[in-house]
Amino acid sequence: MARALSHINGNSLFRLPCRPNPNRQLPLQFPCRVFKVTMSCNQSYWSSINSDIETHLKRAIPIREPLTVFEPMNGLTFAAPRSTAPALCVAACELVGGNRDVALPAASALWLMYSASFTHEHLPLAQSCRPRSDAGHLYGPNMELLIGDAMIPFGFELLAKSDDPARNVSSRILRVMVEISRAVGSQGMIHGQYHEVERYQSDNTKSCHVKKIEKYEGTLHGCAAACGAILGGGSEEEIEKMRRYGLYIGKIQGMVTGVGRNDKELNILVEEMRILAAKELMGFNEAKVLAISNYFEPNFMCAQV
Amino acid sequence: MARALSHINGNSLFRLPCRPNPNRQLPLQFPCRVFKVTMSCNQSYWSSINSDIETHLKRAIPIREPLTVFEPMNGLTFAAPRSTAPALCVAACELVGGNRDVALPAASALWLMYSASFTHEHLPLAQSCRPRSDAGHLYGPNMELLIGDAMIPFGFELLAKSDDPARNVSSRILRVMVEISRAVGSQGMIHGQYHEVERYQSDNTKSCHVKKIEKYEGTLHGCAAACGAILGGGSEEEIEKMRRYGLYIGKIQGMVTGVGRNDKELNILVEEMRILAAKELMGFNEAKVLAISNYFEPNFMCAQV
Repeated sequence: MARALSHINGNSLFRLPCRPNPNRQLPLQFPCRVFKVTMSCNQSYWSSINSDIETHLKRAIPIREPLTVFEPMNGLTFAAPRSTAPALCVAACELVGGNRDVALPAASALWLMYSASFTHEHLPLAQSCRPRSDAGHLYGPNMELLIGDAMIPFGFELLAKSDDPARNVSSRILRVMVEISRAVGSQGMIHGQYHEVERYQSDNTKSCHVKKIEKYEGTLHGCAAACGAILGGGSEEEIEKMRRYGLYIGKIQGMVTGVGRNDKELNILVEEMRILAAKELMGFNEAKVLAISNYFEPNFMCAQV
Repeated sequence: MARALSHINGNSLFRLPCRPNPNRQLPLQFPCRVFKVTMSCNQSYWSSINSDIETHLKRAIPIREPLTVFEPMNGLTFAAPRSTAPALCVAACELVGGNRDVALPAASALWLMYSASFTHEHLPLAQSCRPRSDAGHLYGPNMELLIGDAMIPFGFELLAKSDDPARNVSSRILRVMVEISRAVGSQGMIHGQYHEVERYQSDNTKSCHVKKIEKYEGTLHGCAAACGAILGGGSEEEIEKMRRYGLYIGKIQGMVTGVGRNDKELNILVEEMRILAAKELMGFNEAKVLAISNYFEPNFMCAQV
């Protein structure tokens, strides 16, 4: 654990640029030997998680009848930018000792919810106070509204169908459904998006943006990590540690990629949250902590080889 | 059973005008004594079901924090026109011998899904091929898009939270979630709405409208009745009978209220479906069949007293 924590506190572990800079210098204090071993390990670890989620989702949304609905659902699901929340769900499941397979339906559901949210966020609404999105529309506004509406229940369907009476996990799946419902609904992402709307009607855009990040990226990642821990059979303490860890990670990610990227005050807050997030990983298996800790920088680390 | 079925085949049982005509003449063959008894019974039966669903839903969506989200969610949930599917879910549960309480969360979820669909259907989308809706917008397009998105997961949350380990019904609830996901998603209502969009781009508006009715009203009511039967502990045969009954009822309702109201060809189809629907009720408890059979005409029947 000591090695894991020195790693956590001393290097890129919680530095989360969404757009990695390959020219960035490696911190001097970085323990290079450990880094090289960890890098290749983590690279394949996160690649394999993302690959497994994508495979699971592609199998779940084949281009089948009705083609008029499934073709755009497939297209829009994979057209949205990747959120890191689904992979965090799987990693949290493995961190508490669970099998990856049990978290893949929840990770896929989170992917679908995020894609639905992204699709609807870019709809060209008449009489809207938001600036009109420049994003291209693959299928026209009517279809994109409908398909976003279809993605949400489809995510719940994947989760509900993953029930296996032989494994006696129904109550865990139902608990995860409540978690995801709240996180993507009125108490999470929707509340966050409300603050985003408010941002365009307010003079205090920074305050609205920070509130949005907390409710949107924060709640989504907190939920993802908690769901992974629930499905992996974690204790209540582990579930709550994972929830807090995901909340910090989501908030950090929102801040370093949004309006706060060059904001000194927010950068201090980000550094504080990195330390708090690291503390939530204490007590877990050291090797798995190393694996989860480089979550957001596989490209950056790869570029240093 | 004989009395119940003569009642089914010979009177207003499957005549489903959405806007009842109080001046309409009672069919001559109507068994008046039975009718009067049934009427008051049914009137209170359906009123009590609708009242119980509304009470359940009002308790589930109190106007609480965040007010900016829950106040419009409450408003839009009750602003949408009433669908008959939620009450059919409860009635089907009781028809197979289940307790009303176990179906109320599913009925509330169906209500929320229908309200979300109605809210999004009336969004003023720019670049839309649909005619712009004249419906008033209570909260502005941004909020109505967001709240519709919040209603769908909230419906699933109500269902998932209704799990009670002491009653050992988790697998039934998960099955109902799969049913509702499919019915409100890509294989049901969304597919139906696609046909509605297609209607405005096609010369064959009648064909598109009939396809829309089958997928939207038909699937929604079929799902509602099947879910009620699942939650009420019905056999597989009863569940499938209820699904077919609901499918006919939904399609009839869509046809007599939509473009087909004055269409001779569709009216013949409606009559055929009334007979088919009646057959699906054979074999159930006679008194309950009488109760369910006057489902859609409480106002009409009330006006005949």
